[in-house]
Amino acid sequence: MKHYTNIFDLKNFDLTVSEALALKSDPRKFVELGKGKRIVMLFFNPSLRTRLSTEVAAANLGMDVTILNVGDSWSLEFEDGTVMNMDASEHVKEAARVISLYADIIGIRAFPGLKNKEEDRADKILQSFKTYADVPVISLEGSTGHPLQALADAMTITEYNSSFRPKVVLTWAPHPKPLPHAVPTSFIRAMSQMDVEFSITHPEGLALDPELTRGIHVSYDQESALQDADFVYAKNWATYEPYGQVADGFDNWMITKEKLDHAYLMHCLPVRRNVVVEDRVLDGSQSLVLSQSENRIYAVQQIIKNLLEE
Amino acid sequence: MKHYTNIFDLKNFDLTVSEALALKSDPRKFVELGKGKRIVMLFFNPSLRTRLSTEVAAANLGMDVTILNVGDSWSLEFEDGTVMNMDASEHVKEAARVISLYADIIGIRAFPGLKNKEEDRADKILQSFKTYADVPVISLEGSTGHPLQALADAMTITEYNSSFRPKVVLTWAPHPKPLPHAVPTSFIRAMSQMDVEFSITHPEGLALDPELTRGIHVSYDQESALQDADFVYAKNWATYEPYGQVADGFDNWMITKEKLDHAYLMHCLPVRRNVVVEDRVLDGSQSLVLSQSENRIYAVQQIIKNLLEE
Amino acid sequence: MKHYTNIFDLKNFDLTVSEALALKSDPRKFVELGKGKRIVMLFFNPSLRTRLSTEVAAANLGMDVTILNVGDSWSLEFEDGTVMNMDASEHVKEAARVISLYADIIGIRAFPGLKNKEEDRADKILQSFKTYADVPVISLEGSTGHPLQALADAMTITEYNSSFRPKVVLTWAPHPKPLPHAVPTSFIRAMSQMDVEFSITHPEGLALDPELTRGIHVSYDQESALQDADFVYAKNWATYEPYGQVADGFDNWMITKEKLDHAYLMHCLPVRRNVVVEDRVLDGSQSLVLSQSENRIYAVQQIIKNLLEE
Repeated sequence: MKHYTNIFDLKNFDLTVSEALALKSDPRKFVELGKGKRIVMLFFNPSLRTRLSTEVAAANLGMDVTILNVGDSWSLEFEDGTVMNMDASEHVKEAARVISLYADIIGIRAFPGLKNKEEDRADKILQSFKTYADVPVISLEGSTGHPLQALADAMTITEYNSSFRPKVVLTWAPHPKPLPHAVPTSFIRAMSQMDVEFSITHPEGLALDPELTRGIHVSYDQESALQDADFVYAKNWATYEPYGQVADGFDNWMITKEKLDHAYLMHCLPVRRNVVVEDRVLDGSQSLVLSQSENRIYAVQQIIKNLLEE
Repeated sequence: MKHYTNIFDLKNFDLTVSEALALKSDPRKFVELGKGKRIVMLFFNPSLRTRLSTEVAAANLGMDVTILNVGDSWSLEFEDGTVMNMDASEHVKEAARVISLYADIIGIRAFPGLKNKEEDRADKILQSFKTYADVPVISLEGSTGHPLQALADAMTITEYNSSFRPKVVLTWAPHPKPLPHAVPTSFIRAMSQMDVEFSITHPEGLALDPELTRGIHVSYDQESALQDADFVYAKNWATYEPYGQVADGFDNWMITKEKLDHAYLMHCLPVRRNVVVEDRVLDGSQSLVLSQSENRIYAVQQIIKNLLEE
Repeated sequence: MKHYTNIFDLKNFDLTVSEALALKSDPRKFVELGKGKRIVMLFFNPSLRTRLSTEVAAANLGMDVTILNVGDSWSLEFEDGTVMNMDASEHVKEAARVISLYADIIGIRAFPGLKNKEEDRADKILQSFKTYADVPVISLEGSTGHPLQALADAMTITEYNSSFRPKVVLTWAPHPKPLPHAVPTSFIRAMSQMDVEFSITHPEGLALDPELTRGIHVSYDQESALQDADFVYAKNWATYEPYGQVADGFDNWMITKEKLDHAYLMHCLPVRRNVVVEDRVLDGSQSLVLSQSENRIYAVQQIIKNLLEE
């Protein structure tokens, strides 16, 4: 593994999940591994869980951390061959190479604009850093995926599963703002690597990228889809076709205790209470959202460990 | 002590002051205590002294530090049961619980709005984090108090006092902007714990919360109030009734060398020179403002030490 | 050396360059020197290289680091005797003294306004901190110099030089925005300390401060100036007389591969590609810009080491 920007970058998915869970029981076992090394985290968008869990993970490995909020520095140019006489003061070629001189790993968060599908699918910022950096790049959520979240999600399902082959359902849920496809995309990819009965439910018109969902059972009937589920992953996403719109009129897709029945509720957070999921679920014992957040530490710690060891 | 958001949270005021002063002579004595532990400081408002002194204190205890300026992350919802379809993207229930997964102590700075007295008295942000966090919460200045400042102030008086029972006067001073009541409130509480002759002087109309000042001598005549004082604490505050107004027309309440006579001058900083206190005082040997700032390190270090040990 | 705000502050230029280069081969040799010590970096302007290289250098010396973006804290007053009833909430006298309580070294970045020559020449922010701080001050680029960059530049020339007395040319280059004189000023001073054949070339009307360039050969003919150069330092600066203007109409002063011939290209970065220097040069083997950036680590590390040891 040279970079970690897609959950498919993992050479051995199951081994990574089990090693990450092992770290959880002895977080500072490898505290000498990262001594004198540094991760620079570049945030083009705000962060709470990702930033904090990565700081904790890096400290557990003895590493130093730099947080760069992009507003602290400059506007970047990403196109090749540009005559840079406009706003951008530095080309990503220099930025990525220079940061590589000061960092052993670069983490990057860069959300999609949700205006232009092709542009978002290119995941320009993340891909540019992968191209020009001389050190490993970790996605702290890009346009097309949030692989650290998906690894933590897989760990959480592994921890809480008591079935032979659990039923996992990803359900669309309402939200007042247009949200990226990164989290559902990475979750779907993660589920393809696990021995689970996986399906997706969403209102008609909210289909995800058909390449991504090929071969997966998709239902427009949330109630029947959730029947007998062991894990229900609630997540909003904006429309894929036409691209980037808020889907109104589906308030009744909110996850309630009744719909959940005996299943565990998963969500990547932040969650809008009583819009995406009702209070009763989030405040009850079926919610795994805090476990998912806690596993973010060991997910990124395992990734950093693997990258440092290679 | 479970949290430290009020100077009355201290089980033993005198012992805390003396232990904090002992730390000052050997700051890194307990550098192993905080190894592998982290304080997350959440700033809803700017900070210089509080941030830096806490960073130094944490490092003296071997702890890691995360600074979160709230602009870096999200807008929070504090009300119970809200349908979160407006601006706030995360409820404090999740935020406090999630940060608790990544932190051993949470520090919070959240100033009052000075628009609505009842709202400010509820100290909503700090109290919400106390309610939902699973780790100790330290006030880095809330709406209703600045208990770290007051502990540093008590340490400073203890260090510089040479009287049997020193005369300490809190005097209102002018300021062009409406300022919170947090610092005077905590200072008044601290003085109630010390063996001092304490009084307050302010212009008529600038009375503080009557519950807070019950039993304390209050004078509208600054000159006579300062007579024979050993320590003069200068501080502006906005009106309490009506709430949150700047009091104009009292420029002559500025502290001058003449008014101070032989007393020490105290102020929490930042101070507006030649408005609150004249240059001659701040540049002279009677000013204790730098000692107060230095003691901020050992005040917060003692509090963190106590919280880690419990 | 009490502070480092000008390359002439170095007691022994050659020794500093060679010691800094020695650090590069064993960066963590002095990792015990800074234990329990802290550098506070105060940024009045954005930073990438300076911030990151100083963080790495401080970590190499075992020091703690605080980054203060000035927007995080307050607006400062710099004038003596002001009645502070306007925007500024703290005087530099207090700010510098207070930060000195919490820091062992203070680094400051404060760019010039490029509106008022006399004001910029006074380098008020940096000079005020030097006056009032009780600990050493390092310029992280001020109005009148960027001495850390110049030290890194001198290291880079020393590393790459293979001539007895190399020919070094500082050439003005185009840029769409008015840029400070700090980098060329410090570079010119550094060159005065080295055994090089140094000259400057710029379009007519773009002369630098005549005091600075006294005795140095200056040509308006870039082509002949670059002839047989070993090192070409490309840098834009705004006009000095009248002060602070963008010089239009000199696009043909961009550095191309043809102009460079066999010389190395130097630039402090960030660089606007195809405006200041063409892609072919920056992407080729004659560019030393990454070496300059890498040497920034050991330049500042050597300065911090010297200041800590004094």
